[in-house]
Amino acid sequence: MSKPRAASIDGKLSAEFAVPSHVDAVTELMSAFAERHGAAGRRVVLITSGGTKVPLESRTVRFLDNFSSGRRGASSAEYFLDCGYAVIFLHRHRSLYPYARLYAGVNLLDGLRLGGSGGCTDQEVVVDQEALPKIGRVLRRYQEVKRDGLLLPVEFSTLSEYLHLLKASAQVLGTLGSKAMFYLAAAVSDFYIPASDMPEHKIQSSNGPLQISMKMVPKILSPLVKDWAPQAFVISFKLETDTSILLDKARKALDTYRHQAVVANVLDTRRGYVVVVTPDTQAELILTDEDASKEVEIEEKIVSNLTGAHAEFISKQDG
Amino acid sequence: MSKPRAASIDGKLSAEFAVPSHVDAVTELMSAFAERHGAAGRRVVLITSGGTKVPLESRTVRFLDNFSSGRRGASSAEYFLDCGYAVIFLHRHRSLYPYARLYAGVNLLDGLRLGGSGGCTDQEVVVDQEALPKIGRVLRRYQEVKRDGLLLPVEFSTLSEYLHLLKASAQVLGTLGSKAMFYLAAAVSDFYIPASDMPEHKIQSSNGPLQISMKMVPKILSPLVKDWAPQAFVISFKLETDTSILLDKARKALDTYRHQAVVANVLDTRRGYVVVVTPDTQAELILTDEDASKEVEIEEKIVSNLTGAHAEFISKQDG
Repeated sequence: MSKPRAASIDGKLSAEFAVPSHVDAVTELMSAFAERHGAAGRRVVLITSGGTKVPLESRTVRFLDNFSSGRRGASSAEYFLDCGYAVIFLHRHRSLYPYARLYAGVNLLDGLRLGGSGGCTDQEVVVDQEALPKIGRVLRRYQEVKRDGLLLPVEFSTLSEYLHLLKASAQVLGTLGSKAMFYLAAAVSDFYIPASDMPEHKIQSSNGPLQISMKMVPKILSPLVKDWAPQAFVISFKLETDTSILLDKARKALDTYRHQAVVANVLDTRRGYVVVVTPDTQAELILTDEDASKEVEIEEKIVSNLTGAHAEFISKQDG
Repeated sequence: MSKPRAASIDGKLSAEFAVPSHVDAVTELMSAFAERHGAAGRRVVLITSGGTKVPLESRTVRFLDNFSSGRRGASSAEYFLDCGYAVIFLHRHRSLYPYARLYAGVNLLDGLRLGGSGGCTDQEVVVDQEALPKIGRVLRRYQEVKRDGLLLPVEFSTLSEYLHLLKASAQVLGTLGSKAMFYLAAAVSDFYIPASDMPEHKIQSSNGPLQISMKMVPKILSPLVKDWAPQAFVISFKLETDTSILLDKARKALDTYRHQAVVANVLDTRRGYVVVVTPDTQAELILTDEDASKEVEIEEKIVSNLTGAHAEFISKQDG
């Protein structure tokens, strides 16, 4: 594999992926967030989370998507907050959200009951704490994080939005040097259809079987590491279904992009086993049965490993 | 367009689409539901809602999807319930759900606050009724519907699950004759990859650009109308982005499948304008500014139109 050239990738990004309309407004929010937390001496992590939508038509009815509930990104955000980080949470619209993710499987209305006070139109409605376990504690923590302005949510839906917002956030966090971390957990499409090749209208099934030709998505990790945030601590994720090629692919990614770590995982076992691969080390993180019985999550171990490595990285750069 | 042969479509369904493991359990639930409400003289509608997932790999990382939040299906279910129907709600996992859909845009935790009573671990949590407007009224109605067993939710994710569950429900509701209605609002893929053509593992981007060849999905409306529920009142939906071909396509569908009505709509205007097309009539339903200011939804008008037509259909068959 030849090394991707960072400059040409940046050029392709501008030429072939529509810039989302909210990128300037979001950039302003991210800049203020980075400046405030940087001034307070806080580390800042950008977490990407959820899958990307790749439209097949300009007026989109159909799209290609990547399997991802956003669970890993959302739970990791909570552990980074617990470790004192400020978090920019760049996530797919409607994917899981920190704290609220704990109740995503419950129909809200099954978790509520009508209370004793109030009349017909203003009757009190209270939470059924059996249906929404630990809700009081979770709500208190959520409100703390919100009050202290430690979590900045940013949404994307399409691949284009993801790429442009990631670029904007990388340029913003680049100003924080080694104090910035990138935790790129989103499931990003490897393939797309350039706007110029896309039909305007819904593809008609009466035209017969469908042939789709997709181009390869530029490897945005390359300009991120080289140009936009060269001093930051950067972690990418590698998800495979075939265990035999996983670690080899993780090592190749580190060779190619020269970033700090790859979190490697396999689809079927991703909630109980990951390997954190760095240029010199390889750490297996395993969720034991005992962990599971105590409701420990693998993301707590991943975040603990990486925040430790980040601290070391910062002190080396300072020293 | 040649007429699809119902029997061959049914055969293809068995041969090329994996049968979901929960189909028998769901069929039993649906049978009991249909029997109970049929005996009570109630009309029963099957609503399909949300998009279908079409996997590109057997161990699925990537899939093709159809744009659909499930809003139309979920809101229509409420109006059918208001009209006295019992509802089987065959919907995409995590798509919008009746009643709860009204709060889908709100982070649950932003709608709650810590109450005055209880200690640290069992503190009361109450709903903020400004964040979740009308929650008391909505909750009361949701609980009524649940108590009376009027709404049977059934979930699908993939196209295969959708097709097999629709077949099972059609065979069940076929026993109710003209009292059954099918309201097929789901956004179903027209294309799929047969299991035999699918790679097992995640497609590798290092292999270069991606070519996808998709076959056409069998038109399940054909055996549904001809074989499974020949006396039922059947409504299909047609969504286009190109207004100029819409009505023509709706009429062609009626000619081909010989069902009772097509609800035709255009992507950009679907919340304010639809045309209900039957073999002899064509009714434009429009949401006026006045309607919108009163929070009337277009689904109320669609359901009102169709339940009227269904009543007429039943009395003709009885007479």
